[in-house]
Amino acid sequence: MIDRSDIESALTRLKQAPVGFLRQTPLWRLPGAALGVAAAEVWLKLEHLQVGGSFKARGMMNRLLAQPLTQAGVIVASGGNAGIATAAAARALGVRCEVFVPEVSPEAKRKKLRELGADVVVTGAVYAEAYQACLARQQATGALLTHAYDQPEVVAGAGTLGAEIEAQAGVPDSVLVSVGGGGLIGGLAAWFEQRSQVVALEPETAPTLFRAREAGEPVDVAVSGIAADSLGAKRIGDIAWAVTQAQVRQALLLSDESIARARHTLWSEFKLAVEPAAALGLAALQSGAYRPRADEKVCLIVCGANFDPSALA
Amino acid sequence: MIDRSDIESALTRLKQAPVGFLRQTPLWRLPGAALGVAAAEVWLKLEHLQVGGSFKARGMMNRLLAQPLTQAGVIVASGGNAGIATAAAARALGVRCEVFVPEVSPEAKRKKLRELGADVVVTGAVYAEAYQACLARQQATGALLTHAYDQPEVVAGAGTLGAEIEAQAGVPDSVLVSVGGGGLIGGLAAWFEQRSQVVALEPETAPTLFRAREAGEPVDVAVSGIAADSLGAKRIGDIAWAVTQAQVRQALLLSDESIARARHTLWSEFKLAVEPAAALGLAALQSGAYRPRADEKVCLIVCGANFDPSALA
Repeated sequence: MIDRSDIESALTRLKQAPVGFLRQTPLWRLPGAALGVAAAEVWLKLEHLQVGGSFKARGMMNRLLAQPLTQAGVIVASGGNAGIATAAAARALGVRCEVFVPEVSPEAKRKKLRELGADVVVTGAVYAEAYQACLARQQATGALLTHAYDQPEVVAGAGTLGAEIEAQAGVPDSVLVSVGGGGLIGGLAAWFEQRSQVVALEPETAPTLFRAREAGEPVDVAVSGIAADSLGAKRIGDIAWAVTQAQVRQALLLSDESIARARHTLWSEFKLAVEPAAALGLAALQSGAYRPRADEKVCLIVCGANFDPSALA
Repeated sequence: MIDRSDIESALTRLKQAPVGFLRQTPLWRLPGAALGVAAAEVWLKLEHLQVGGSFKARGMMNRLLAQPLTQAGVIVASGGNAGIATAAAARALGVRCEVFVPEVSPEAKRKKLRELGADVVVTGAVYAEAYQACLARQQATGALLTHAYDQPEVVAGAGTLGAEIEAQAGVPDSVLVSVGGGGLIGGLAAWFEQRSQVVALEPETAPTLFRAREAGEPVDVAVSGIAADSLGAKRIGDIAWAVTQAQVRQALLLSDESIARARHTLWSEFKLAVEPAAALGLAALQSGAYRPRADEKVCLIVCGANFDPSALA
């Protein structure tokens, strides 16, 4: 569990990050009519413009600044946004970074990690095997392990996004957030508490929080579909589970089709090139899964843009 | 020639545009260090997020609101950003729009124009022939003609971008602007006058303003290269010529290679998916063609994003 005070600490700590590493990303306020939505305002928090192309840099930098760093550096198992953010944070702080990825991971992602200065270790047929190898290596080297979503500093770092939104435009009536392992919603719900209605959004094909709420506890789920690349955690994180049980009243499922449609709208009508996970907020509005009041100010978190742009063609 | 009062009039007139049509686009302020630039701040004005994917909607809507509209509607010869912006403005106002394009224009652009409700007329081997056919048709129907860059309302509309920047963040020390026919720089230089240093940027392969300044008057130039699609006017507009002679002291040429590099940086490091014309500002900084002072606040106009995203892959 984390709370608002952990995020306040993260805000203070992140001031030690190298100048220009973390970016204050734009908050784009539009009248609902601009998006064909019956709400007073839609705020698009353009966090896909964050360093590393997703919100994850906030949490990774917070963890690296909070813990002692040694010659052994940093270690992570992830071929996705968490790996990129860890590698970028490590490079900015001048420490070594090892990233474990399974044999199925695409070469393009390994290349991106190498460009960020990481040592990429390809091992294991699937992610779980790469993760086990990563843990064994961490035991041997003593490197600092970062987890994609279930460490207090990582969730609190993500929560600084909520503080930034509030500083830019105040507290929105609602915040629509995509959920994979839950690091982002954990941070945002801990920041806003009951001052804003934080709504969890998941693809039907990757329903970690939805199924946990049905079961009354975190459970493993099968994941597939359009956003599995970034929302494909198999189980909601313990921290996110605790925070969302206390603060989040709605968890909604969205079809892959509605997510694809919203993503297409974001590119063709708004020239925002984003990964599928970043389109769930608009999908919830377009599909009617979430219906705002006419006077509502709805904030959508546009959370990532690590993908092959030819997918938009 | 236009001046600041024309832009003030445009600001007032554009309040009559349908709600949500014109967007206040984000101004993203970053420390120079975030872009590896030795300047205090770099402001990225994200005008590629404007409706129609470029700044042109401002000028086209301003012209349509300033002139009487009849059943004959609006007419334009353009397969590019000006055609898209005219079609979008006409649709928003509920009037008919005819767009003349030459036989060489790509089907993808015709499709986009049809999606915006325009009647697309394909005629002539090259643009000049399509333009002549457009003029003949305008004489016959009496439709309102919009020009891509050389009409007072179009330049003044573009100038509202300057007013918006000033309202968002004040007056920058310098404004780096891409030039094709000159509609955008004409508007920005008329707005900022000598309060900011407005710098003209052109590809070496499309040097309309640079050659005009050498010749002492607008001259036809050969155009080709990476940004010919949107900066490929053959001659600087008369309005832009008059305004820039009065207000602009620097016109710089950039290599296609430096433009391609800056465009790649904008996508890979900043997740801004933009057309080549939108990358000239960063290209000028990266290449050293423009060297800001250490305490300078430099504003780059990210002006458009109409392109096939597979080009970024």
